[in-house]
Amino acid sequence: MITGKNYIGNNLSSRGNKTYKTFNPLLNIENEHIYTEATSEEINNAVDLAIEAFKTYRTYSGKQKAVFLNTIADEILDLDDELIKTYCSETGLPEGRAKGERGRTIGQLRSFAELVAEGSWVEASIDTAIPDREPAPKPNLRKMSIPLGPVVVFGASNFPLAYSTAGGDTAAALTAGCPVIVKSHPMHAGTGELVASAIVKAAQKTGMPKGIFSNLNSSGIEVGEQLVKHHGVKAVGFTGSIRGGRALYDLAAQRDEPIPVFAEMGSINPVVMLPEALQNRNESLAKTYASSITLGTGQFCTNPGLILGIKGEELSAFIQNLSNEIVKIEPSCMLHPNIIDAYENNKQKAITQQNISVVADYDSDVKTNYARQTVTTVKGEIFLNNPTLHQEVFGPYSIVVQCEDANQLEQIITKLEGQLTGTLIAENEEALKYSKIVSALQNRVGRLIYNGVPTGVEVCPSMTHGGPYPASTDSRFTAVGIHSIKRWVRPFSFQDWPNALLPEELKNENPLGIIRLVNGKQTSEKI
Amino acid sequence: MITGKNYIGNNLSSRGNKTYKTFNPLLNIENEHIYTEATSEEINNAVDLAIEAFKTYRTYSGKQKAVFLNTIADEILDLDDELIKTYCSETGLPEGRAKGERGRTIGQLRSFAELVAEGSWVEASIDTAIPDREPAPKPNLRKMSIPLGPVVVFGASNFPLAYSTAGGDTAAALTAGCPVIVKSHPMHAGTGELVASAIVKAAQKTGMPKGIFSNLNSSGIEVGEQLVKHHGVKAVGFTGSIRGGRALYDLAAQRDEPIPVFAEMGSINPVVMLPEALQNRNESLAKTYASSITLGTGQFCTNPGLILGIKGEELSAFIQNLSNEIVKIEPSCMLHPNIIDAYENNKQKAITQQNISVVADYDSDVKTNYARQTVTTVKGEIFLNNPTLHQEVFGPYSIVVQCEDANQLEQIITKLEGQLTGTLIAENEEALKYSKIVSALQNRVGRLIYNGVPTGVEVCPSMTHGGPYPASTDSRFTAVGIHSIKRWVRPFSFQDWPNALLPEELKNENPLGIIRLVNGKQTSEKI
Repeated sequence: MITGKNYIGNNLSSRGNKTYKTFNPLLNIENEHIYTEATSEEINNAVDLAIEAFKTYRTYSGKQKAVFLNTIADEILDLDDELIKTYCSETGLPEGRAKGERGRTIGQLRSFAELVAEGSWVEASIDTAIPDREPAPKPNLRKMSIPLGPVVVFGASNFPLAYSTAGGDTAAALTAGCPVIVKSHPMHAGTGELVASAIVKAAQKTGMPKGIFSNLNSSGIEVGEQLVKHHGVKAVGFTGSIRGGRALYDLAAQRDEPIPVFAEMGSINPVVMLPEALQNRNESLAKTYASSITLGTGQFCTNPGLILGIKGEELSAFIQNLSNEIVKIEPSCMLHPNIIDAYENNKQKAITQQNISVVADYDSDVKTNYARQTVTTVKGEIFLNNPTLHQEVFGPYSIVVQCEDANQLEQIITKLEGQLTGTLIAENEEALKYSKIVSALQNRVGRLIYNGVPTGVEVCPSMTHGGPYPASTDSRFTAVGIHSIKRWVRPFSFQDWPNALLPEELKNENPLGIIRLVNGKQTSEKI
Repeated sequence: MITGKNYIGNNLSSRGNKTYKTFNPLLNIENEHIYTEATSEEINNAVDLAIEAFKTYRTYSGKQKAVFLNTIADEILDLDDELIKTYCSETGLPEGRAKGERGRTIGQLRSFAELVAEGSWVEASIDTAIPDREPAPKPNLRKMSIPLGPVVVFGASNFPLAYSTAGGDTAAALTAGCPVIVKSHPMHAGTGELVASAIVKAAQKTGMPKGIFSNLNSSGIEVGEQLVKHHGVKAVGFTGSIRGGRALYDLAAQRDEPIPVFAEMGSINPVVMLPEALQNRNESLAKTYASSITLGTGQFCTNPGLILGIKGEELSAFIQNLSNEIVKIEPSCMLHPNIIDAYENNKQKAITQQNISVVADYDSDVKTNYARQTVTTVKGEIFLNNPTLHQEVFGPYSIVVQCEDANQLEQIITKLEGQLTGTLIAENEEALKYSKIVSALQNRVGRLIYNGVPTGVEVCPSMTHGGPYPASTDSRFTAVGIHSIKRWVRPFSFQDWPNALLPEELKNENPLGIIRLVNGKQTSEKI
């Protein structure tokens, strides 16, 4: 049941007087529930509870944490129709998407549960002592990952489940041993509260410390700012705009004690289409890309917003085919009036630049909050010299750049800002021939896709979801997959520590049976 | 042979007109050579060369990089007496220390060579495709670590070899595949140039790209600032003061594209001495700590600058014993007049705080640039409320805090800034009894030592040299040991990439025979 209140640890609380509602973009009306924004005092209470919870939670065993994570998953499933209906009413997204995203969220929680129950993720390393080494004895050193402390997670507008309240950031932080305070996204506050209630119920059922989790409502920037500045907060996870992510990064960097901000931000996901591939697969590529550009009304951080080719008949034909295909697709609803306003404004800014041509623009009437898909094209030289055209237009929009030659194509790639993904559309021999282009592309992105589309982020250990700035604020970590846990931990060493006092992960007898690096060799043997 | 010039890639260059000399603190005279500071143009040249070198160097095989690293080690050894004499003349440190530090430097280079020749360090991960998965096919994803790009390394005043020109940061960055530009430390510019010449010779002998390494002279802050702000630089390594490290961190965070700064900075390395241990080992602990406080004239970042105990007879006796022991030790020379000036000033600031007592102060005359070791004591409450007393006094200085009880001890630990190390002096049962103190200490440090001293940083995989801010700017990485390579790399994924075009590390046949995570299982088998 939605109350509109904040969860300060396990308690519902609404001491403030600033309120807001969520919006149903399909019906173009406000939803009924009223949400009360967290007060400064409530924020401090949530952080104080998290600091206290951290003292004990960081010593909980992997098995205990696994039970907690799996119970969160169970409780989310238990929300059943209420969750799905609330999700749809707050996003305009179809039920199938809601259920798919719920499945992804559940899958993430269960895969972290598996990871932490097994235990090898702590990267335990042991170097045994050599007491008679000359000139000095070698001490006994044992290292493992330990949690950073309370983590603040900002919910994402476009993934109310998988990247929000109990999404990847929260699941990874709880797995690592960090209490989590969620700054709920105002566009789906109801979905957020329901999921928060599931986490709180799971925490209570499985004996987690009070304050392991809080969920704070907020429609402005103040709650988030206070959280990021709070001395008790040790790291931040964010998915959203470059402006928002950078503002949080700057706040965190300016603290007396700077803390890491893992912001996964904008990306235009360049797609390089080489001539032979275009010659052989022009129409099917056009169909595939028309569909990828409009998938989820283009509201994915991996949306292909930039297509790069070398000018010529094949590329011209592709532009024509893409234009024909994309206008066949029925426009769909965006998440919120603010999002469609931003889409229209950013698109307007792009298409009114000099020497840019609109080649496809869905021009029939569309319902309120529905987005018209648009494709533009421009010469390589123009694109190269106009940074406005490099900016993300969040929505069903893409620009096709016609480069003079391979050199200009390489030059453009080298000048691009950091990106989540890069895609190469090529025949195999062509890919070899254009190896300099592939190399330049690799240097600007976190993931390279071959003859596919960038939309669709598989949740698996080998996924990198991140990339050079501004795709993310810290390219050294992925935001998706089990290794995203590395964002919330630090290495820690015990020197000459008595075996009985060591954590289980580092004891001689290896009671957990985990894989460890022992004197430089990986093994699950005891010592 | 020392020329006083910069290495811009493989070329000696001295286009500037700002010059300086190094100083021999033992003789209290300037050394003969004149060093020319790098100009703005030389700095840009060095970075441009590094950007160009990165394009090819990042594709070099592990075996090629291993040969390069081992050749650097060989060339450094080949410098022989000239290096040792220059080192001693620029630091006032004894020959034994110079040779020891050279051994450590060589050892680091060779262990990185071994790491990169073996190859498993890239943390390769492979998830194979499931084309018939419902509702959507699973793509083939393969992940590994790739280098960030050109890295700037700032030499450290107190480790002219092991943490400077070819020290841990440089060795790790070159291993990762990153070109390195060293901002040479002005106090040991001659040592720096000699080591740089060894690296350049090794680069030429082993066919490394031009610009893989540069060494820039500088006596002020301008060269470093320009380097950190340069768009071509992708990460920074620094060892030194909190003020210096924080200034670089701030510059890097304010860039359009922020970059990581790994600054290993100040630490007072709290040592907790529990009552029973003090009762049983009072005199030997006093001897051990007198020696640890004065080791290397206290010029170690792991120097024990803070000893915490619970007030009582044992602690009073320890203070007396420590005072007696420490004044028996012959004072020694500090690295530079600037360093001894800072030591005297910081010590003066500390001992003139209210309610602090000086209990040992070497009061005989000492030679110029020699440091008088000093021990002070203060009540827990005074220490708790005076942040000045929490600041590092770099040199042979330590303060013993007499806490009211275990609660106050825990309170003090909780209030401490982040530290490289924490040490527990205890009997085994005592350690168990004081588990809350151990837990609080763990939360403030990167390494916990049991019944030992914090000085001495073993180079091995299980070492964590780093810790919560301000011990380092990024507690998630160690600056010492093979895992310090993780600072200079980012994860990168290939999706559905043809086997033939994949790097060796990710090919089906596993030609390097490295350990990989394949569908969630660690194996060195092929696919």
